Parts: sequence; C-alpha cells; structure tokens
Amino acid sequence: MEEYNIKTKVVGVDISNERTTYAIVDIRGNIIAEESFDTALYRDVNSFVTVLSEKIVTLVEANGGYETIRSIGVSAPSASSISGYIENATNLPWKGSVPLAVMLRERIGLAVGMANDAHVSALGEYTFGSAHGMTNFIVISLGVGLGSCFFSRGSEHVGHRGFSGEFGHTCVEDHGRLCGCGHRGCLETYVGAKGIVKTAVEVMTSSDQASLMRNLEKLSPRTIAECCDKGDELAIEVYRQTGYKLGIGMANYASIVDPEAIILTGGISHAGQWLVDPTRESFEEHVFGNMRGKVKILTSKLDDRERDVLGASALAWSVPEYSLFK
Amino acid sequence: MEEYNIKTKVVGVDISNERTTYAIVDIRGNIIAEESFDTALYRDVNSFVTVLSEKIVTLVEANGGYETIRSIGVSAPSASSISGYIENATNLPWKGSVPLAVMLRERIGLAVGMANDAHVSALGEYTFGSAHGMTNFIVISLGVGLGSCFFSRGSEHVGHRGFSGEFGHTCVEDHGRLCGCGHRGCLETYVGAKGIVKTAVEVMTSSDQASLMRNLEKLSPRTIAECCDKGDELAIEVYRQTGYKLGIGMANYASIVDPEAIILTGGISHAGQWLVDPTRESFEEHVFGNMRGKVKILTSKLDDRERDVLGASALAWSVPEYSLFK
Amino acid sequence: MEEYNIKTKVVGVDISNERTTYAIVDIRGNIIAEESFDTALYRDVNSFVTVLSEKIVTLVEANGGYETIRSIGVSAPSASSISGYIENATNLPWKGSVPLAVMLRERIGLAVGMANDAHVSALGEYTFGSAHGMTNFIVISLGVGLGSCFFSRGSEHVGHRGFSGEFGHTCVEDHGRLCGCGHRGCLETYVGAKGIVKTAVEVMTSSDQASLMRNLEKLSPRTIAECCDKGDELAIEVYRQTGYKLGIGMANYASIVDPEAIILTGGISHAGQWLVDPTRESFEEHVFGNMRGKVKILTSKLDDRERDVLGASALAWSVPEYSLFK
Amino acid sequence: MEEYNIKTKVVGVDISNERTTYAIVDIRGNIIAEESFDTALYRDVNSFVTVLSEKIVTLVEANGGYETIRSIGVSAPSASSISGYIENATNLPWKGSVPLAVMLRERIGLAVGMANDAHVSALGEYTFGSAHGMTNFIVISLGVGLGSCFFSRGSEHVGHRGFSGEFGHTCVEDHGRLCGCGHRGCLETYVGAKGIVKTAVEVMTSSDQASLMRNLEKLSPRTIAECCDKGDELAIEVYRQTGYKLGIGMANYASIVDPEAIILTGGISHAGQWLVDPTRESFEEHVFGNMRGKVKILTSKLDDRERDVLGASALAWSVPEYSLFK
Repeated sequence: MEEYNIKTKVVGVDISNERTTYAIVDIRGNIIAEESFDTALYRDVNSFVTVLSEKIVTLVEANGGYETIRSIGVSAPSASSISGYIENATNLPWKGSVPLAVMLRERIGLAVGMANDAHVSALGEYTFGSAHGMTNFIVISLGVGLGSCFFSRGSEHVGHRGFSGEFGHTCVEDHGRLCGCGHRGCLETYVGAKGIVKTAVEVMTSSDQASLMRNLEKLSPRTIAECCDKGDELAIEVYRQTGYKLGIGMANYASIVDPEAIILTGGISHAGQWLVDPTRESFEEHVFGNMRGKVKILTSKLDDRERDVLGASALAWSVPEYSLFK
Repeated sequence: MEEYNIKTKVVGVDISNERTTYAIVDIRGNIIAEESFDTALYRDVNSFVTVLSEKIVTLVEANGGYETIRSIGVSAPSASSISGYIENATNLPWKGSVPLAVMLRERIGLAVGMANDAHVSALGEYTFGSAHGMTNFIVISLGVGLGSCFFSRGSEHVGHRGFSGEFGHTCVEDHGRLCGCGHRGCLETYVGAKGIVKTAVEVMTSSDQASLMRNLEKLSPRTIAECCDKGDELAIEVYRQTGYKLGIGMANYASIVDPEAIILTGGISHAGQWLVDPTRESFEEHVFGNMRGKVKILTSKLDDRERDVLGASALAWSVPEYSLFK
Repeated sequence: MEEYNIKTKVVGVDISNERTTYAIVDIRGNIIAEESFDTALYRDVNSFVTVLSEKIVTLVEANGGYETIRSIGVSAPSASSISGYIENATNLPWKGSVPLAVMLRERIGLAVGMANDAHVSALGEYTFGSAHGMTNFIVISLGVGLGSCFFSRGSEHVGHRGFSGEFGHTCVEDHGRLCGCGHRGCLETYVGAKGIVKTAVEVMTSSDQASLMRNLEKLSPRTIAECCDKGDELAIEVYRQTGYKLGIGMANYASIVDPEAIILTGGISHAGQWLVDPTRESFEEHVFGNMRGKVKILTSKLDDRERDVLGASALAWSVPEYSLFK
Repeated sequence: MEEYNIKTKVVGVDISNERTTYAIVDIRGNIIAEESFDTALYRDVNSFVTVLSEKIVTLVEANGGYETIRSIGVSAPSASSISGYIENATNLPWKGSVPLAVMLRERIGLAVGMANDAHVSALGEYTFGSAHGMTNFIVISLGVGLGSCFFSRGSEHVGHRGFSGEFGHTCVEDHGRLCGCGHRGCLETYVGAKGIVKTAVEVMTSSDQASLMRNLEKLSPRTIAECCDKGDELAIEVYRQTGYKLGIGMANYASIVDPEAIILTGGISHAGQWLVDPTRESFEEHVFGNMRGKVKILTSKLDDRERDVLGASALAWSVPEYSLFK
C-alpha cells in the first residue's frame, strides 16, 4: 500500500517592527522549534525575505525536513489577507505595497497565508486562548499602535479589502491630538505607547503634586505602570485617563459588534488593573444599555509572542496545501 | 403520484412605532397583497398580536389560502433574532421583554422569524436592493433613531445577543448632548430627528442671519431640508453640522468594518445632497487612510416601507418550515 | 454629490451540448432580453468564445449598455468552479481543459463566474424555484447524462476539485452495462436517454406482448413516455425498470446526504408519473429507515432552460465585481 | 478588577455499544483524566444517565472542579445533532427516541452537545488528526456497523434531520444479503464485522483449499486478518472481496462528494493492507474519471477511542456556554 504523506506540522511566522519570530508548530499547538531575529536589520524587503527563507529552511531541515511541513502562516502589520500585500505599514522598514506572501511562497515552495497582526492575534486567542469556543468576540492589541480584530459567527471578519479592525484610528476626540496617520483625535494618540507618555507629561505639567514619574529617566507605559504599582497617584491618573478614552472607544466598538468578550493583548495590557479598571468603568458608562454588564473584558492569558506564532500556525492550516516538492 | 405542497409565498411584517405593515410576498419579491394599520392603537401587546394575527389570516385567506404560505418574517425595533424577544424598545408602546415571535407563531400556526428593523432593512437591501452581490457592507437607517446593520462574508452580523449595530448610541462627543438612553454624546442626539431640530435651534440662536427656518410652524428634518432646497444658508448649515457628525461616526464604523459600501436609508436620508455631501466630506476626512476614497456611500434606491416588508419576507424564507396545518 | 454606479443587471449564460442561451437578468430574476444559438456550430472553442462575446455585447448594448451590467455567470457541462476550467466534457465539441471563464472575462472585460450545469440548476432551484428556503437538498438533472448537485447548510457543495455530484457515474450494477466513461454499471447507462432506449429494446425483445413502441420510428425517452400516456404496458414497464434503478441510486444518495427534498429536472423528468412513481417506490424501499417517508421527491416547477439561465444569473451575483470599464 | 472565569476544559463522552468513555480535555486536546465503564450494564437509559452524570461529576471534582468545565460533548450511535435525540439505535440497549442531551444537561447543569459517533470521529480527525487543514473529506468508520461523515467547506455536513452519512446502508448489491435494517444488499452486510465473517464462510465453503481459518475457534475480522498476516490465501481472498465491495461504495460516495481524502477508521480498518489495497484498487476502478488517482485513501493515525473522546471534546466547544453554576 502506497502511503500518502500527511503533513503534521506548519511554520508560523510573526513579523513585528522589532523582531521576526518563526517556529515549527504541530497540530495541537506544540512549538517544536523557534528562532527569531531583528527585523530592522533588513531595510530592503528582498534581503529580508531571502534571509527569512533561508532561516526557515535551515530550521526545517534540522527538525524533520521539508516534506513534513504543510504550509506557512505569516503575521505582519498592515497585511491584507485579501490582497496578500503588506500595504503602507507605518512601523516597518519597507514602504508602499509589499507582496510578501507571494515572495515567500516563491522562495520556499510551500503555500503561504498572510494576515494582519491583529487578525492573527485573534486567531491565536480563538484557537488556543480565552476566545476558544466563542463565535463573536473582539481582540484588541495595545502597543505602539492599536490593532484589533473581531469574529463574526465563528470566523474572523476580514472586510472588503482586508483592512478591518483599524480601531486605533477611530476618532475619539474631534480636533484632538495629531496622529501619525495625519488625522486628529485618533484613539491611538491617547492609548498607544506615545499617547500614554504624552498624557503623563500633560498630567505632570498641570499639577504640582509629587510623582515618581518626575524622576524617571525614560517615561514609557511600562515605567509609568511601575510607578502605579508603587502607589503613585499621578501615574494612576495617567492610566485613569487612558482607560477612560479606551473605554469610550471599546463601548462604541461593542455597541456595533455586540461581542461576548473583549480580550486585551499587547504590551500595554500588561499594566493590568491600572488600565483595565478605569477602562471597564468607562466602558460600562458608555456602552449601549442592552449590553451593559454583559460583555466580558479580559486580558489575554497567553504570552503575546507565543500567541502570535501560534495564531500564524493556525493561519497556515487554513490555506490550501501546495508544495513544489512532495 | 402524491404531490408535495411546495409553498411559494411568505408573509412579511414590518412593525414600526407608527404603523404595522404586512404583506404576502412571493419568491421573487413580488408583493401580492399588502395592508397596514396604526401600531399605537394597541397599547397592550396581547391585543396587538391578536389583531395582527387575525388580519394576516384574513389577508391570507383572501389570497390563495393558508396552505400556500410557508412562513412569516417580522421586522421590529429592538428585536433580537437570537432571543426572539423585543427587548426594551424605546419607541414602542410595549415595555420590557416581549416574546413576539413565539406569540405570533402560536396564534397563526406557522414558523415565525423575527429580527431588528435595521437588520431587516439590510437584508432587504442585500436581497433586492443596492447591496445585492456585496458580501461586506453597512446599512444605516436614519430616522427618529439611528439603526444599523453590517454584513460579514455575505451574512448579517448578528452579535452574541442579537443587539449588534447600535450605531446611534456610539459616543461622538464626550459629555455631549443628553440622549434618551441616559448617556451623553450619542450620535443619535445629533443625527436623529430630534437632534437635527436641536441643531437647527442652536444654529438660529447663535446667528442673526435671516432664515426661512425662523418662519416654520414646525421644525423637522423634512421642513429644514425644504428650506435647503430653497437655498436657505442656515438650513444648509444645519445639515452641514449634522453630516459632519454623521461622517465621523461612519468613518469610525468603516475603519472597524472595512465595508464595500455604506447605504443610507430612512426618512432623514431623503434630505439627499444636503446631508450626503457634508457626510461624505467628513467621512473621507476621518476614515483610515487605506480606505479613503474607496468606500461607496449610497442612498437606498428602494422605498423604505417596501424594502422593510421585502426584507421581512427574505427573513421568513430563512427560518425552518413549520406548520400546524399542511 | 457624485453618484456611484450601482449595477442592477447581470448576464446569465447556459451552455449545453445543443444550444447556448444568454440573457440579461435583473436582481429579481426578470429576464430583460434573451437569445440563443447552436453550440455545435463552433467546433473551435476560440471561435465559440469570440462569437459568444460579440453576441453578448450586442445584446447588452441594445438593452441599457455595458455600464449597467455587473458580471456574467456561465453554466457549462463538466465545468469546475474551483479551476474555472471545463474539463474533459464528453458532450461538448471542445476536448481537454478549456479555461472558458478567463477567456470570456478577457474578451468582455467583466467578472465571469462559471460552474457545472448541474450546480447551476441547483442554484436556480434554490434562488427562484422549489428549493427556495431549503438548506439541504439534492437536484438531479436527467437528460443525455445525469448531473446532480446538493446543498449543505444553504450553500452548494462544491467538493475539493469542483467535480462533486457525478451521480450518473455511480455504480448501480456491478459488471453492468458499459458506460461512455469506460466503466460498467454506471447509473447513466440505465437512466440516461440512451439507457432508457436500451431498456426499451430489452423489454421488447424479451416479450411477445404487443406494444406501440414496436411501431415507433424513433425510440426516445419522449416517445416512450407518449406510449405510456396511451396505456402501453411495455412502455410503462420500461419506465418502471428505469425508476427502479433511479430509486436505488437516489436512496444511496439520500442515505449519505439526508436531504429535505430531491428535485428532479431535465428532459427525462418530463415523463412525469411514469418515471416518478416507480422511482419513489424504489426509493422508499431502499433508503435508510430513519429517512423513509420523509424525503420530498419533486419534479421542478420551472422551465429547464429558464431555470438554468436564472441560475447562471445568480452565479453572476456571487463573483466579486470587476470591470475594465466603469 | 473582577476576574471573569474563562473555562479552559471540557468533558468529552464517547458512548459505544460496548463501553462509555468520558474524559476531561483541555483546549489543545490534552486528556487530563479519563475513565470508562460498560455501557450494557445499564439497560434502562435513566439509570445510565444518572450513573454517567455521577461519574462525570466525581471525575470533575477530583480534577479542578465544576467551575473549570465549560461544557460537555457526547458521541453516540444514531444520535442526531439537530434533534438532540438518539433515534432507533440498533446496537444500544435503549430503544426508540432518547433525548440524551437534555437528560444529561438537566442532571449536570452544563451545556451538552451531542452528535452521531461517525460525525464525532470526523470532527476528531479534523481537529486533531489527518484531516486537519482539509475542508472536503470523508471519514468512514468500519466496525460492527459502517458509519461515515463528510465535511463540506470546512464544516461537518449534518443533513436535514441530522442523519447524514448512513454509508453502511447504501445498497451495493440489488437483492443481496439481508441486513439487520430490513433491507437487502446494504454495504454493511459485506463490509461490517458480521458481513466479513459471512464472506469467510462462503469463501471456505466454495473452496477445498486449506486455510488457517478452518481451524479458528472464532471467525472475526481480527482473526481473519491474522490469518492474512500468515499468508493464508483464503483469508486474503476474504479481504479482497470485502475491499472490492467497499471500493465500489467508496467510489460512489466520492463521485458525489469529490473529497480530498477518505480516512478509514474503526476496528476493521486495522486489517491494514489486506483491506486497504483491494479497496483502493476497486475504488480507482469505479470512481469517476476526473477524480481517478486523486483521492487520498488513508487509515487513521489516531487511536480510535482517543479520537472519539477528543472529537467529543471538540463538539463540546461548539455549543454555547451555559451553566447552572458559574
């Protein structure tokens, strides 16, 4: 009896502006091998893809070989799963439209699926995290920017062009702070990393109160949260204001989507209660009445990087199998 | 050969705070017979359902008989297709939770589907209107309140509890106008019928300029729009401000959903260019860059009442067949 | 206000081995204009597509013009909606793999969807016929060959390569009659047009009984059915044997798919009770117990050609809009 | 911050005519604890459900407690996921219609999903086995009876009443062997356990050739396969005839469904090459031309019992969460 080669592993790739992580993952989400490198080393996207391909092939050859890998899934900022392009990524070194999925497929000879980083995070939470078993939920990724993705009837909502979920660029303050996208009042300018620092400066400027923040070498969401942990009132006020704005944005999102849960992920979510408590309070104050008290607001239980690599592996399983080899 | 009775007609019912319309509709959306009555005549929901049932049965008996009707679809404000209840409808005479779908099914003996009026409008646009052939789009209903519904992958997004699309209660102005829902700054307080009138009063109060609006017996979205048609600058300013706020709300909605089109329906959409032009301008100014210039903003080509009855008929086809009779 | 061009019509094309029919159809299935020509006139597929394109453009120009047409849907034997190819069609003049969808799209400059004729028939019954409102059903097309399609959860089951539904080539008699496909015992060899004629010859040969069939100039499913209408016992026996075999095949199909209904279409279904009664009897005798007496066996209420053009129009709406023009 | 209780485990239950197995399973398919008991001990279904409930509660209390369990999934012969009933199960002690899902839900106070054993096997192969990443495939379970399930567009095909996949009761031999279901010629009478034994008796009776089978105390699929392993020609002939019939049935199935793969599971599939080689040969001889050589015929890589418990756990995640407790 001739045996068919049923492939039981995929490669998940998570490209962020800082690091690119790639791992061999099996059906149940066990990471067989994982490596990463500095994304910014490769200013030219061709060099990047060449190096990434070589590194993947090397890892694969050392872990069971080419013919055991079914496909590849890629998470990248500003990627569209519909076009297969990264388009106008503000935080990546490569400008304009980059057909990364096709480039990788041609170099490696395996099927490649690609999607927006926030969409992949949501897929990770759905497949292996807190959203497992939910059919309507929102995942919000809080970091340098604010990504998001929601599921409708158990499937990721992709949108007409693959750019749904741009939560960070919803306007929460008409004529508000100037955003890197050129608009004013985007939620990101208040809840993104730079926005929180800006709020901290404003809070300190408008008050005479003593604060540990005044002694910090570098203001960042993390250092501000550390001040909160020490009971610093102004630092707590910074996250209170941040949560207030985030709560409005989330309430608007929920009034439209009616989710079972909203899951907060990403570096800034690690501020924990300092962020989540005021966010939840503002959320309940602003969300439509029929949903008040009913939407679960959660922080992710998974490690961010692991979830994104696992989400990319789940994406890999969703593309039709294709191999130059067999 | 025994012949199976394949039923080729359904009943579509549209319940609004003003009128209840019911019609016999065939597969292709031809309205065979249609009648309506004043919803507010029946302050008690039991009386309402009894009368509605009797009227439907009478219409059905006069048009081919019971055994030709497959099922019934109902559009109602604040209805959830998941619970089958009308819940806390602000503009209907019946308070609290009303299990209208079951009540009607028990009285008539046929399968009954029920959904939110905005969802039924979207289903009508999808089945017979401008959204036919689209898989991701938004329908916004502009009237006393602001309803909405969006489609994801060719299906209505329902949400976890069936209350998605509460666009009118998204916050566009923190600490803004007081809404009937108890919150402040809801979009409805600026773009709903009462909100537009309020803006008109504000515009007239803050200006000395002559205006036809000052002579109106009754300020309403319609009479204000008529002033616009006559070139009245302050009236045009009223719709300009209205469109500006609506444009922000729609931009936020689109940044999250990434639709192919947004279709405006309902009484206020009949203001036409006076509303749509400033809305579109504000929309393009606020929507996420990758979608700018790409989302079609349309007004419905269908008559509102006809579309809602047709949408209800499409809903009727989506529920499993059931009949006490045969 | 710039107006978007929302297109409200499509072109449906039905290619059969005999005739090619094309029509302009609106959203509700009204045929605006329809023409047809002899498929076999064009032995070369390039000539065929060129002529078809020119004829479509001419019809379109005479009926509202190019910019009113959204897209084109094509029904063809042995077509795969996955590959977009007609593959090894036994009854068409063009051999091998023919990328007809792409050829037509390039010539006309509009989006083209293509699917197997049986799949398009099912789509027609679902959108405008007896299957409207059903989510699990089978449509069987009885003609020269036997096509079929079933719906699963409200969508056409396409299969991995787009070749599902090859009901005519299921084996009902091990080592039975030789089929054109090279196998023995295919259902088509008993229930297809040639198979019925063969059965008629066998029935006449193995009996001395008088029969109107013995005087027929040409034995065909239609002329045999006419003999049945006149009470001819041997002719009735022909259809009894045909229905017996068809009933076994359908019972096997239903035991696997568990449909709400099986709808019989195509020329041979016009034999009516002579075919349907013994088919149903054999079906009930062979189908799995839990389904016995529960599956509706119907003949189509639509004209075959109209349904296929309408089904092709429904297919046209399902492909993403694309136009070289605007 | 109040913490929501996100439940990370479910209970999977596999009820077969021999044993009932129940296990606590986490999101990734790790079995935390598993026990089983003899199904036939409980001739009365009320006793059965009471005992099963108590045993599950005991296991759950010993492994993290009630509030960590999201829901329960049950695999049972002749169960319909649409009605929630076990209906007319031929091999279970409980006759007629048994509303097992509701009975269990009422006793345990958690959401319960139930489906046909073959459907749960397919879900297990899809979630954790060889079908992971496939969207159209068939799983056939070969044991006392022959169950099956196929996936369409990535979802299990359920059918109108939940009884799809009755592959064992498709007719492969008109007027053939009498089946327990009352029909003649069902595939099960040739390929089910009793059918194989019957074939062995026929083969031995019609031949004078020596055979190890003649000395067997008990003829069974397993003992016959052991004879094959020892090179016994008549035993090999038994499986050759079995595979021939199975190949016809599978070819008919595939011609209708067009799957990417057919996965054989269940006790009889353990005969391995003796069954699979002639099955594949007969399959290729009978399947429709466009699929010949393209359908992967596989045996399951998972342990049958483990797969069914895991499949039941996947089913548990698909039902909406519900708990009497919190």
